[in-house]
Amino acid sequence: MEITVLSQAELKELLELDKVIETVESVYRQKAGGQTAVWPSVEYHFEEKKAVMDIRSGYLSGDKLHGAKMLNNFPLNIGAGLPAFTGMLLVFDSENGRPLALMDASYITSMRTGAAAALGVRTLARKNSKNLLVVGAGRQAFFMVAATLLAMPQIENIRVHDPLSSANAEEFVLQIEDRLKSELNLDLAGKINFTASHDLPALLQDSDAVITVTRATSPIIKKEWVKQGTHFSCIGADMLGKEELDPELFRSARAYADDKKQCLSFGEMEIPHKAGIISEQSIQGELGEVLAGTAIGRILEEDITIFDATGLALLDIATGKLALDLAREKGLGQTAHI
Amino acid sequence: MEITVLSQAELKELLELDKVIETVESVYRQKAGGQTAVWPSVEYHFEEKKAVMDIRSGYLSGDKLHGAKMLNNFPLNIGAGLPAFTGMLLVFDSENGRPLALMDASYITSMRTGAAAALGVRTLARKNSKNLLVVGAGRQAFFMVAATLLAMPQIENIRVHDPLSSANAEEFVLQIEDRLKSELNLDLAGKINFTASHDLPALLQDSDAVITVTRATSPIIKKEWVKQGTHFSCIGADMLGKEELDPELFRSARAYADDKKQCLSFGEMEIPHKAGIISEQSIQGELGEVLAGTAIGRILEEDITIFDATGLALLDIATGKLALDLAREKGLGQTAHI
Repeated sequence: MEITVLSQAELKELLELDKVIETVESVYRQKAGGQTAVWPSVEYHFEEKKAVMDIRSGYLSGDKLHGAKMLNNFPLNIGAGLPAFTGMLLVFDSENGRPLALMDASYITSMRTGAAAALGVRTLARKNSKNLLVVGAGRQAFFMVAATLLAMPQIENIRVHDPLSSANAEEFVLQIEDRLKSELNLDLAGKINFTASHDLPALLQDSDAVITVTRATSPIIKKEWVKQGTHFSCIGADMLGKEELDPELFRSARAYADDKKQCLSFGEMEIPHKAGIISEQSIQGELGEVLAGTAIGRILEEDITIFDATGLALLDIATGKLALDLAREKGLGQTAHI
Repeated sequence: MEITVLSQAELKELLELDKVIETVESVYRQKAGGQTAVWPSVEYHFEEKKAVMDIRSGYLSGDKLHGAKMLNNFPLNIGAGLPAFTGMLLVFDSENGRPLALMDASYITSMRTGAAAALGVRTLARKNSKNLLVVGAGRQAFFMVAATLLAMPQIENIRVHDPLSSANAEEFVLQIEDRLKSELNLDLAGKINFTASHDLPALLQDSDAVITVTRATSPIIKKEWVKQGTHFSCIGADMLGKEELDPELFRSARAYADDKKQCLSFGEMEIPHKAGIISEQSIQGELGEVLAGTAIGRILEEDITIFDATGLALLDIATGKLALDLAREKGLGQTAHI
């Protein structure tokens, strides 16, 4: 028996972000059509190492694929010159249970998470949105920016705020055009204004869409700073206790989930749910249902919309299969005997 | 970054069953010493395919290893000339979260499960046990026999009963000596009497130790057939609804778990527990605690003892690391870039 192994370098060569966005959209739609199963996630904290690992898994019955992703986040690695974040994705053929591929999961996670945030913006933000605010200038922010630019060509201004470090946000903005060109082959040639700012309340007064992508465990964004009509794609809260938005925002916002159960258990909705501010019934729907037309998205220009993306292994599995198919086409990938 | 991939053929060359038994014993002892974490298992039934997959995972803090095993059981594969049972094991270094190895999980599962059953017999059966009964003559039975012969050299007679097919049991017995020699290099040269029989009540009247390894979902072994002093290692029941022993046996037996929580949730103890026959308190302990001397094993010659082995990914992870170390020593294994 054989399995294809794809390295991070091969994935970078194979995967184009616009195709990943299409793939993620297709998975969300399959989910809305009842063609997927999200299996329970497993999470463990290595207290001594301040590290965390999680296993996400699931099944795409339409694509006849299942699989699991195991991610390890060991922040103390940085001191030893190793990446903090490593992970492996295993994809199986659900026709016969045979393994298809093993690959680096961290790059795919970044790509599909960016795609998810961007689809949230494209689906729920006002169509005439011009100003995007990205809160958090860490490793993932780059993919949020890139995917949203692809999904929302009407965006003109991207503002970056890092609650932990203004210098970080400034450096991010300085490098973004070069990185978009060198890493993703996106040539913007001065079409977008990128700025960094420390003044979050002022930024929010001039933002059409906001992507939050921090590790915060208490709200960064206060309700009184938010203007009517804003859309939020909340990416950071993907484990118990993480929180980026003022729970009070959920009282009047139209809220959407990538997966209702996960969002209420450990996403941005966890704490508002525990506080009794929202319930499963008060969620307008899953993003896939809006895409499929079975749930209603934004109604009014002044609606505040929130998309809570906790992350689905389904996205990784489908993106992994996309990479595998491309690798077969191009003769890339390593074959191992198992 | 690199990962070592080990094929089933390489694992067969590298792993010796006596070393696997030592490894499994070491893991049980580490578990008793609080040096392990068993993470929640994930299980899914593909109804159309009559197939099931499960993900088991966990952490060995002493060995600084964590990992996950994904097993697929697709019985309809047989008709297509493919193995029913395939799986993958991923092992990570818990110092930094980096992946160490990917390998075939089905052979390791067979080896470590045989070792677990044998350790149950060695630890809990009467020391003068001579007669072993194996109930179930499927794929796993071979490893049960081999491991118990290694762990219990005093065994003289092995009887095999297959509740679904007498012919299967007879064929198993005909081939066993050759298979032990060719597959595991165990040369018994007529030292053991192997017989097959359909008369389960009579067999039980003459058995010191019994290993049950079927897919039964209702009891095969009735309480009235069981003589005093018998030991049972129950292997088959590793998922919801599976059951091999008369629940009534648990009223008077001394019962042991590989993992209390798993045994009560989906092991041989599941149904007696739901019926109120046993509770967590009525379990004498985990096998590792008996090995470590922190729980009391068999007391009287006439005690009936039951070891419920639901399977722990910890065993696979430690056995996988054993294989990886041996592969490095011997220059085996495939290196893939990730």
